[in-house]
Amino acid sequence: MPELRKDPIAHRWVIIATERAMRPNDFPAVPIPPVKGFCPFCEGNEDKTPGEILAYRPGHGAPNTKGWRVRVVPNKFPALQVEGNLDKRGIGIYDMMNGIGAHEIIIETPRHELSSTPLSVGETQDVLWAYRDRLIDLKRDRRLAYGLIFKNVGRAAGASLEHTHSQLIATPIVPIRIREEMEGSDRFHQYRGRCVFCDIISQERGGGQRVVEENPHFLAFAPFASRFPFETWIIPTMHVSHFESIQKPEVEALAEIMKSTLTRIERTLQNPAYNYIVHTAPLNTGDLETFHWHIEIIPRLSSIAGFEWGTGFYINPIPPEDAAKFLREMSPAK
Amino acid sequence: MPELRKDPIAHRWVIIATERAMRPNDFPAVPIPPVKGFCPFCEGNEDKTPGEILAYRPGHGAPNTKGWRVRVVPNKFPALQVEGNLDKRGIGIYDMMNGIGAHEIIIETPRHELSSTPLSVGETQDVLWAYRDRLIDLKRDRRLAYGLIFKNVGRAAGASLEHTHSQLIATPIVPIRIREEMEGSDRFHQYRGRCVFCDIISQERGGGQRVVEENPHFLAFAPFASRFPFETWIIPTMHVSHFESIQKPEVEALAEIMKSTLTRIERTLQNPAYNYIVHTAPLNTGDLETFHWHIEIIPRLSSIAGFEWGTGFYINPIPPEDAAKFLREMSPAK
Repeated sequence: MPELRKDPIAHRWVIIATERAMRPNDFPAVPIPPVKGFCPFCEGNEDKTPGEILAYRPGHGAPNTKGWRVRVVPNKFPALQVEGNLDKRGIGIYDMMNGIGAHEIIIETPRHELSSTPLSVGETQDVLWAYRDRLIDLKRDRRLAYGLIFKNVGRAAGASLEHTHSQLIATPIVPIRIREEMEGSDRFHQYRGRCVFCDIISQERGGGQRVVEENPHFLAFAPFASRFPFETWIIPTMHVSHFESIQKPEVEALAEIMKSTLTRIERTLQNPAYNYIVHTAPLNTGDLETFHWHIEIIPRLSSIAGFEWGTGFYINPIPPEDAAKFLREMSPAK
Repeated sequence: MPELRKDPIAHRWVIIATERAMRPNDFPAVPIPPVKGFCPFCEGNEDKTPGEILAYRPGHGAPNTKGWRVRVVPNKFPALQVEGNLDKRGIGIYDMMNGIGAHEIIIETPRHELSSTPLSVGETQDVLWAYRDRLIDLKRDRRLAYGLIFKNVGRAAGASLEHTHSQLIATPIVPIRIREEMEGSDRFHQYRGRCVFCDIISQERGGGQRVVEENPHFLAFAPFASRFPFETWIIPTMHVSHFESIQKPEVEALAEIMKSTLTRIERTLQNPAYNYIVHTAPLNTGDLETFHWHIEIIPRLSSIAGFEWGTGFYINPIPPEDAAKFLREMSPAK
């Protein structure tokens, strides 16, 4: 009997196929094509990107030269632009505003790596610090409501350049799915007086069957109502609403669990395309009792049928309990 | 300057790239592979599908034999199953129920066509009558809240069999995006006392720059906040909430505008993969003043990046005014 499960935050329902449950080998591995051609993100090609916004340079070298560990540059083809006024206006019943915002690329390493997992834990920490530092900086621009950090790995996940990088899009509005999570979480808080994410963490740690990995600061788990095969969330076990509030011991713990969780996913599914998205509270709010930042990792194993993103109603051929077991049993060690 | 536009129904925002706007030729055509192998949907192979639920047989032949025009069969690998009880239950903070529902295939023609556009207007009418008849029948099952009719064309859109067919998934819950549309439309009605869809129709007909085609009963247009390039909606110009209320003159008019709009899309984009989804009111409600059924057609031209379906925040590289113009100027004539 298939199961219908409800996500306790956004209240979306998912069909979990329990009888013809698929296994990791049922998803054909798409080999990553060989490196060819010029890469503007590699060390030495700094003049091929727009000028850097931020770079970690241990040797204190000049901007836009060699010698960096992480480098943040504006997207050459930005979806939004920094200059100008919002100029909010109506056209009959429609509302619009100018596309003001920021679109930045976080180049995670000077080496031409196709994934972030070859980065050391120390290098991964630098990437996370760059996320934080950029959010903190963008908070000062009062036109911006939200800072969206995400990563596309592989063509099927929307990556156009293979050199491992993340993106940050800062927008004058809060994306609707984040707003839905916030509203769902608010309703839970009104009703039960607690943070729904904290309750999820408590239930998942108690049961354990959907846990992938855990350390003193973070939990990696397959959500009860996973929309996608091997969907995995990483969440701080202490309540905190904004990613940019992260402290040093947490950056260290997050780098470890990110590296090992992504390694488990890459090994189990033979280097799948995937996305991850940092779900954090809006830039322009103070600490929130009812939101809890987390990272959602979504392997792109099957094409999403039209009705799924048209309706928000997903069919997942792998129970999250099975997915978590496969990932848990895969060693992330070198 | 890119534009941020808000969908007036669901209140999602879309980035419309206005400066580097793409053209139809910027999306590489993926040729439809040649027909090969056995097709269980072709006339003569009726014993290779589960037994038919409904068929239009002008010659009054026996079920599951040749001589049909449209044939509806259960999906051989259903996402939901008809037998059993819902058995709603909680597991700690989580909610679930059994995967009760229906999953049916509407085989649109006995011929091995790869698209519905080679069907005559009369044959297309039969497909629409089949949609209606199945919804009317499923309404009697009080366990079911929603009947979701959709069509996947091409591998990139999730089709696994190429013989042109639609699907119907009936569920005990209302999909979240439909609920969002209903809630948004309710709020508009409370505030302005009218149906938001009716207001959209009025504004679009008045302006005309996003209109693709129009007939006495239906309007085909590119929505103001189109999420996807060449996204096109077909909507009845008279207010009606449920698809299954459709009357004969409307079926005729809908068959015409579906055939010509899909032909325009196929010619403009060189046979793209696409989905369409019928957005209709729930099975278990009476007529609603605040919902207005429509069909959303979404060509699958680019892979959807992770952040887009993770956040509901889309970047559309083609202004809908441009997309509508390309479609409007393409002849749908034979």
